[in-house]
Amino acid sequence: MNFKDLIAELGQAASLASRSLARSSTDQRNQALIHCADAIEAGQAQLLAANRKDLDAGRERGLSAAMLDRLELNPERIEAMAEGLRTIVELPDPLERVLDEWTRPNGLRIQRVAVPIGVIGVIYESRPNVTADAAGLCLKSGNAVILRGGSEAVHSNRAILNALHHGLDQAGLDTNTVQLVPSQDREAVGALLKAHQWLDLVIPRGGKSLVERVQTDARVPVLAHLDGNNHLYIHPSADLAMAVEVVANAKMRRPGICGALETLLIDKDASAIVPALVEKLTELGCELRGDAELCAMDQRFKPAGDEDWMTEYLAPVLAVKRVDGPGAALDHIARYGSGHTDGIVANDPDLAESFLAQLDSAIAVHNASTQFADGGEFGFGAEIGIATGRLHARGPVGVEQLTTFQYRVFGTGQTRP
Amino acid sequence: MNFKDLIAELGQAASLASRSLARSSTDQRNQALIHCADAIEAGQAQLLAANRKDLDAGRERGLSAAMLDRLELNPERIEAMAEGLRTIVELPDPLERVLDEWTRPNGLRIQRVAVPIGVIGVIYESRPNVTADAAGLCLKSGNAVILRGGSEAVHSNRAILNALHHGLDQAGLDTNTVQLVPSQDREAVGALLKAHQWLDLVIPRGGKSLVERVQTDARVPVLAHLDGNNHLYIHPSADLAMAVEVVANAKMRRPGICGALETLLIDKDASAIVPALVEKLTELGCELRGDAELCAMDQRFKPAGDEDWMTEYLAPVLAVKRVDGPGAALDHIARYGSGHTDGIVANDPDLAESFLAQLDSAIAVHNASTQFADGGEFGFGAEIGIATGRLHARGPVGVEQLTTFQYRVFGTGQTRP
Repeated sequence: MNFKDLIAELGQAASLASRSLARSSTDQRNQALIHCADAIEAGQAQLLAANRKDLDAGRERGLSAAMLDRLELNPERIEAMAEGLRTIVELPDPLERVLDEWTRPNGLRIQRVAVPIGVIGVIYESRPNVTADAAGLCLKSGNAVILRGGSEAVHSNRAILNALHHGLDQAGLDTNTVQLVPSQDREAVGALLKAHQWLDLVIPRGGKSLVERVQTDARVPVLAHLDGNNHLYIHPSADLAMAVEVVANAKMRRPGICGALETLLIDKDASAIVPALVEKLTELGCELRGDAELCAMDQRFKPAGDEDWMTEYLAPVLAVKRVDGPGAALDHIARYGSGHTDGIVANDPDLAESFLAQLDSAIAVHNASTQFADGGEFGFGAEIGIATGRLHARGPVGVEQLTTFQYRVFGTGQTRP
Repeated sequence: MNFKDLIAELGQAASLASRSLARSSTDQRNQALIHCADAIEAGQAQLLAANRKDLDAGRERGLSAAMLDRLELNPERIEAMAEGLRTIVELPDPLERVLDEWTRPNGLRIQRVAVPIGVIGVIYESRPNVTADAAGLCLKSGNAVILRGGSEAVHSNRAILNALHHGLDQAGLDTNTVQLVPSQDREAVGALLKAHQWLDLVIPRGGKSLVERVQTDARVPVLAHLDGNNHLYIHPSADLAMAVEVVANAKMRRPGICGALETLLIDKDASAIVPALVEKLTELGCELRGDAELCAMDQRFKPAGDEDWMTEYLAPVLAVKRVDGPGAALDHIARYGSGHTDGIVANDPDLAESFLAQLDSAIAVHNASTQFADGGEFGFGAEIGIATGRLHARGPVGVEQLTTFQYRVFGTGQTRP
């Protein structure tokens, strides 16, 4: 099979669907989301049957228990998928927002208006709910989407797609608004990543190796984050009790998410925090790795090396370093940080503001947990992921970030002198 | 020479300069621009001497008169370069604008604040003034820049760089804020285009072959436009006299710029415009190519073929087609357009608004010349180019478009439940 032709076929259909979406109304897109949610609920039996095939095949292929759990659909998870779509209905329409408007001395009125990006590719792994989530966010923002799920979820994803197509059809929208790459061949992903003629954007959702492959091979813009090697710096002005709570939450609430704290920088003049911090974190089951001075202060620190400053543990392990002032903290973050979420705990607001401004991070936090790096916590309602690139969107990517803009220039016959 | 190492060296220096720029004040950046302008004026003799070397070498290499003209510096052009920098000083600071701000129910205050993109690569051809223009726009927006000018302007560009370094130094800024790739080897450009570790963005300024190469080879985001195959559609409700003036200006004011009109679509029910339009355009020296019906109506039309709908003439030639209603016009533009600037002449405002909303163009115009597709005409003060991609910036790219944003989250000790 020629994968380039396959993707071109999907791309052409998506491009037509995208044009017809541009003519649809807010109400029509919301109705489609409601119909999709209803169809997912009504199709529960089919979804469970399809999912059973994937689970059986997965067991045969020896997938781990964790992977089988991610793959599994049950009535609660199916209900959650439908509810997820209904949540998206409630969000304000991100399209046709007038982002800016001004009138030129010659009378030309210029508007900057939010419009869909066009055709978005989403490449993801085992969890089948991403099929509905990603499709819902793209539909809400007026984009056609080409999905490429993991081969282990092929039957589940097709069953979900059927339900989504039913919903789109009920609302009178082109079913090609949501398409699934019909091949499980790895080369199909390669062809998708190179299809800049058809795709305006690719979003990978999954582990580091998937994101890495997408970032390396894509000839299409990518929104993604590879690492979340996040830092907090404890300034001497910090309320130490607050700092302990914030650090404990940032590291241990869910150590495996991309917003989790990975390295703590303690100002030499804030060393008073060390005993309470070590107490709290070890009590929560966190392993501590520290520089030589910290190891000398408390034997519960294991020695940290250069590789610790570079590591995103995604586990209950925290690297801790003493630094000599905010400048040294910023230097450390500039050298080892991944531009995801970094911050400061300090009671001096001017210093905190200046510190945040010097951080080259998508999200800069003052006196709060890094685990707030999340579209829901930002109030975006739903997110398709977090971006750490520097262009278009940074931080949580919600429906607004799935739009671009168009200039509309209204004249009364103006010509340029 | 290992070009990867060369670019890494420039990249490292740019990255450090970019961090020190992040600590500079608005006033310091503006002072630097003024000092740069002064240094360019003060260095007139050196600039002219360096330019003479380039002109002599160009003549020896047999450059065309047009290319030699683009390459030439004279006192007026040097003065214009200095004045260009002073114009940039007058623009509002694009940095630290609070683009959005809200407070979450848990008390977290979230700001979206404009920050520099980081390190920008600019690749351009003969005109040496781009060296000062691009450096000025990047400096204003807090970005470090790595410039790669054309080999024909190597001495002129170095002389301008010296003046800029003098200005940066006077203002206490890192001179590595503006660097010039010291090699004229084509492979140095290749290495620059692949340096995603160091560059956040590449902007090509030049002819189609340069832009094409950059878009094909870059592993770094690119802001550019390849084609400006622009359309206007004359609706039956149009004021025909206004339409003739707008079309004549859109095509003939400067036929060679990217905002020039290339294809005119006339509604079958607006055919009454044809005689006056043909009269006006032939009088201005414009060649007309039309469909079979137009050729039958007026023998001054030469027959247009499919290739005419695809051609960006950048010359006094206009392709004209009769279409059956706005839908047919939109279909034609969707098929042949390049997403640059397209529009409608119509006296029905609702229809015009709906037409613009269905155009997939960076700039959509109603009752105005397409030649307004320009940063200056938009009120941006200065532009580094026009972008027709869909992400980050579309249309004119001015200093605001050379910024990205950062979320700043201000808490009082919040932890995520």
